[in-house]
Amino acid sequence: MMMNGQKMAAAEVAVQLPESKMVTENIGGAADAMRPFGRKAEVMNVLLRVLCMVTSVVALSSMVTAQQSSTVSIYGFMLPIQSKWSFSHSFEYVVGVSAVVAAHSLLQLLISVSRLLRKSPVIQSRTHAWLVFAGDQVFAYATISAGAAASGVTNLNRTGIRHTALPNFCKPLQSFCDHVAVSIFFTFLSCFLLAASAVQEVIWLSRSKH
Amino acid sequence: MMMNGQKMAAAEVAVQLPESKMVTENIGGAADAMRPFGRKAEVMNVLLRVLCMVTSVVALSSMVTAQQSSTVSIYGFMLPIQSKWSFSHSFEYVVGVSAVVAAHSLLQLLISVSRLLRKSPVIQSRTHAWLVFAGDQVFAYATISAGAAASGVTNLNRTGIRHTALPNFCKPLQSFCDHVAVSIFFTFLSCFLLAASAVQEVIWLSRSKH
Repeated sequence: MMMNGQKMAAAEVAVQLPESKMVTENIGGAADAMRPFGRKAEVMNVLLRVLCMVTSVVALSSMVTAQQSSTVSIYGFMLPIQSKWSFSHSFEYVVGVSAVVAAHSLLQLLISVSRLLRKSPVIQSRTHAWLVFAGDQVFAYATISAGAAASGVTNLNRTGIRHTALPNFCKPLQSFCDHVAVSIFFTFLSCFLLAASAVQEVIWLSRSKH
Repeated sequence: MMMNGQKMAAAEVAVQLPESKMVTENIGGAADAMRPFGRKAEVMNVLLRVLCMVTSVVALSSMVTAQQSSTVSIYGFMLPIQSKWSFSHSFEYVVGVSAVVAAHSLLQLLISVSRLLRKSPVIQSRTHAWLVFAGDQVFAYATISAGAAASGVTNLNRTGIRHTALPNFCKPLQSFCDHVAVSIFFTFLSCFLLAASAVQEVIWLSRSKH
């Protein structure tokens, strides 16, 4: 029964990789354990990396350009107000996390593409899979917390404290608020893509043999 | 070589479960695949659930009791201010997520304990492991985003907009701010415990056989 299972697994690899020149090298216990994924999954992995890099760069650049000066009427006084992303810890956190995620995605993308071109498996070992999983997991938590923290501060009037009505700052600062909103949206998108990558690595780990 | 591997796996199970009465039932392919974990890991899983339930209940109760009235001086006027968790969307989100996480932890705890008492494996199948992993993963993202969103609104003066200096609301509302801070701390702790559970399920999935 065990031998039958091994035969089936080898057959599966052959079916998954009809175009690969390495099929003859891949049949057998060790190489089989190294490639529980087909090419399709590997290409999707690369696609996820590209998308994640794009979304984090968009989030980063949209936040960094968020800056505007205007005036607002408080208690009848016209007061000059200035808005900039670097005035808020949460927005600085978004910028920092986006930059790190973009760098991580670029690195993983370069590794994956170079291995795809050399026709070797994208994930070479269980240790590698665990490392990439840990990285994706940590960055997914970082991006979702950045997005949530930034969302939390966008509405000044909602702080759990019912104080005198402050003006809606997003009316005079339309461009600033738009930039922030775009950045937050793409930060959440990055998180989703990182979470998808993490799940892909779990699938890899659950399919690979010891 | 494959047969050798199977023998080794069976030997590992026997070593991991010296106290179990089920060793004779567990030797063999199917039962082996169902229990890649020793009792120690299963007890740790139960411990994680208990801790996660406690932390989310503390976060929930601390936030729900966050409520205070005081006065604050703005532009020389003494203004009455009222603070309550339900005035903020972020704090409402923390309460909602904590309640759901507490319920999820209790449910998983009951399932795990009843199985431990019946001496059957805590995780019965790969589908079950995937389900629990998905649940823990989603709740970990939810708790970290709730904690981050709540942290984002705690400091009113940091919104990316440099406006006229608002008073520090946490001075007159010390008790409110303390409650919120405790709640946020325990929300992040819940996230950490859920993430640890998720990793444990990935280890299970990566060790189990098809």
